[in-house]
Amino acid sequence: MSLLVKKFGGTSVGSTEKIINIAKRIKKDVDKNNKVVVVVSAMGKTTDELLALADQVSDNQDSRELDRLLSTGEHVTISLLAMALQSLGLSAMSLTGSQAGITATNIYGKARIEDIDPSRIEKELLEKDVIVVAGFQGHNLNSDDIVTLGRGGSDLSAVAIAAAIKADVCEVFTDVDGVYTTDPRIVSTAKKLDQISYEEMLELASLGASVMQSRSVEVAKKFDVVIHVRSSFNECEGTIIKKEDETMEDVLVRGIARDISESKITLVGVPDKPGLAAQVFQVLAEKDINVDMIIQNVSHSGKTDISFTVKNEDFKIANDTFLALAKEHGFEDVITEADIAKISIVGVGMKSHTGVAAKMFSILAENEVNISLISTSEIKISVVVAKDKSDAAMEALHAAFDLA
Amino acid sequence: MSLLVKKFGGTSVGSTEKIINIAKRIKKDVDKNNKVVVVVSAMGKTTDELLALADQVSDNQDSRELDRLLSTGEHVTISLLAMALQSLGLSAMSLTGSQAGITATNIYGKARIEDIDPSRIEKELLEKDVIVVAGFQGHNLNSDDIVTLGRGGSDLSAVAIAAAIKADVCEVFTDVDGVYTTDPRIVSTAKKLDQISYEEMLELASLGASVMQSRSVEVAKKFDVVIHVRSSFNECEGTIIKKEDETMEDVLVRGIARDISESKITLVGVPDKPGLAAQVFQVLAEKDINVDMIIQNVSHSGKTDISFTVKNEDFKIANDTFLALAKEHGFEDVITEADIAKISIVGVGMKSHTGVAAKMFSILAENEVNISLISTSEIKISVVVAKDKSDAAMEALHAAFDLA
Repeated sequence: MSLLVKKFGGTSVGSTEKIINIAKRIKKDVDKNNKVVVVVSAMGKTTDELLALADQVSDNQDSRELDRLLSTGEHVTISLLAMALQSLGLSAMSLTGSQAGITATNIYGKARIEDIDPSRIEKELLEKDVIVVAGFQGHNLNSDDIVTLGRGGSDLSAVAIAAAIKADVCEVFTDVDGVYTTDPRIVSTAKKLDQISYEEMLELASLGASVMQSRSVEVAKKFDVVIHVRSSFNECEGTIIKKEDETMEDVLVRGIARDISESKITLVGVPDKPGLAAQVFQVLAEKDINVDMIIQNVSHSGKTDISFTVKNEDFKIANDTFLALAKEHGFEDVITEADIAKISIVGVGMKSHTGVAAKMFSILAENEVNISLISTSEIKISVVVAKDKSDAAMEALHAAFDLA
Repeated sequence: MSLLVKKFGGTSVGSTEKIINIAKRIKKDVDKNNKVVVVVSAMGKTTDELLALADQVSDNQDSRELDRLLSTGEHVTISLLAMALQSLGLSAMSLTGSQAGITATNIYGKARIEDIDPSRIEKELLEKDVIVVAGFQGHNLNSDDIVTLGRGGSDLSAVAIAAAIKADVCEVFTDVDGVYTTDPRIVSTAKKLDQISYEEMLELASLGASVMQSRSVEVAKKFDVVIHVRSSFNECEGTIIKKEDETMEDVLVRGIARDISESKITLVGVPDKPGLAAQVFQVLAEKDINVDMIIQNVSHSGKTDISFTVKNEDFKIANDTFLALAKEHGFEDVITEADIAKISIVGVGMKSHTGVAAKMFSILAENEVNISLISTSEIKISVVVAKDKSDAAMEALHAAFDLA
């Protein structure tokens, strides 16, 4: 007997027909003598429909009321799935986030999970085969209110519950088969990974591989929850996300990610005065603009160049800010470049193998891809290249690092 | 400053436009320095839509899961109305039934309110102008579950909250202007009543005047809550339902109701044996069939006739039962009559005035309406007549008792 947590997102529960299919799928687990906790999101477009209603009554919605409104979406799904399970002869019951013991901070719309008291789930599991829990939500004890957990919140609910009840595995069902070596829409030979370490997944998630949100992977890593990312459309094995083990280090590069959501800004001829760089980034911080990669070249004749990347949505405001700063502080120029791509190779094997960066750069050179920025971590090397070269660059790297 | 409870049903909150209109209406109360608690139902057809979803996943729905599902309807309305109020500049917040302190029995689908702890509403009202509460639901403490209060549950929530917070009045908004002397669709001269006593309203409610459910009026009577039934489409004064006072007794007949939901069965020539009548009604009770009026004539030569009325939906099964019994016990005949109407005149004035029954019967006789059954209470006289005579009978009674 295993204790399974299974999470189905909005697309997977998008219609009553799909809900019945999920119930049938869960029945197979129960027939094999497993106990199951299912975490579900709101059905398909429900959240969008609720937001549209809110827009009709108010231009500036109170976040407390909005959380109450949105949480009804998951409450509909849990009752329907519990009924569907019961009509297959399973003993099942639904629990809200609050009933499931999920307490969260009082930040409406993007609360953090503070604690999970698993006692109710554990008690009900003594008698029931399946407990259906509303994802995306928790309960704030101070205000006795429902709070939602923000984007990716249902994954987070599932992983946190799996940690609290010490489940054998947390299965996250999605519209893809698992985690791929790279984006199959770009590189046709992209291959599904059998396994990946938390660290690698975190690097890939933050780099634009949108299978799992970083928050959930971090919680899984902290509590050693084995995640199985798999398709809700078939029963194939997906990708296991788990603690790094020795065999994983044999693989030099686990995956390749591309991020085209950033733009590059270069401040040319910045006077090399102490504190000026600090001032530049202070200005960005004040405007709530996140800077990703930062490169400062060595200075010549008292002047230096500073390059960095910002999210595309922050690009205009960042640029305007710098044009103003440039006048004030006598920069020679502000050069912007929007059509860039950040390509990253990720693998825990890099920790114990040398020459990975050199190999990456030479492959790119052979393919006439110019590198304009480089940044590295222990298990990741990122480069910024021209966007129109990035498809070819990924193809070449994918082949050269034996990922195909 | 007054403390008002206002209840709006599903039709009144059927669209975001209507919700905005209700918010504007409430703003007028707040502008006059009143504090308001609003109790609302699910929007328009929401409950039907949710039931349709439930039907799609299961033939035999668990009542606990169904209650969870249905309660989301009210949760959507309370958040939207709170947002609409806030966008008019009012300080407003929503509370679920549970947060409003409504505890109820654990009978899913038709729970009874056990208690209301008004402390949260009272606390929030110190700072807020308007509290929006989800009607139709309570919280069962033992199971920590939402339970729904069954048909007319939102009226009940409103009256019970009004009692708990000692509101000055409980305004119930409906699609009619108030309580009428009789059904205006039958008698064109029917007149809206300015006031009516709880007792009269209870008799009229149970007799087919469907403005307010009996349960809510009973609670109002018990806790002396003044109810104001009024239209959600205009701002006219409606009908006040309150404790009987002396002026009310001046009116002989307050209202006339007709009930065409029953059929008549007569057992002819029943042997006058002790216990046989008991046995007849025992059989009906076992089949969960409610009997309304019962008349047993005096017996002649050891045989008697028993007549009674049952709900139309129970008519067939009751009839089949009696045909079987008739054989067994040697009744001479079973005569059924489906096309009947029960007409009742109601008024607390009857308690102190004599001759009302005589007047009623003679009016009916003058209009050639034959009476087949009679039953009376302290403030009510009911007669069963042929359905096709009932319109004329009501017209005549309405005019004769000066109700027009």
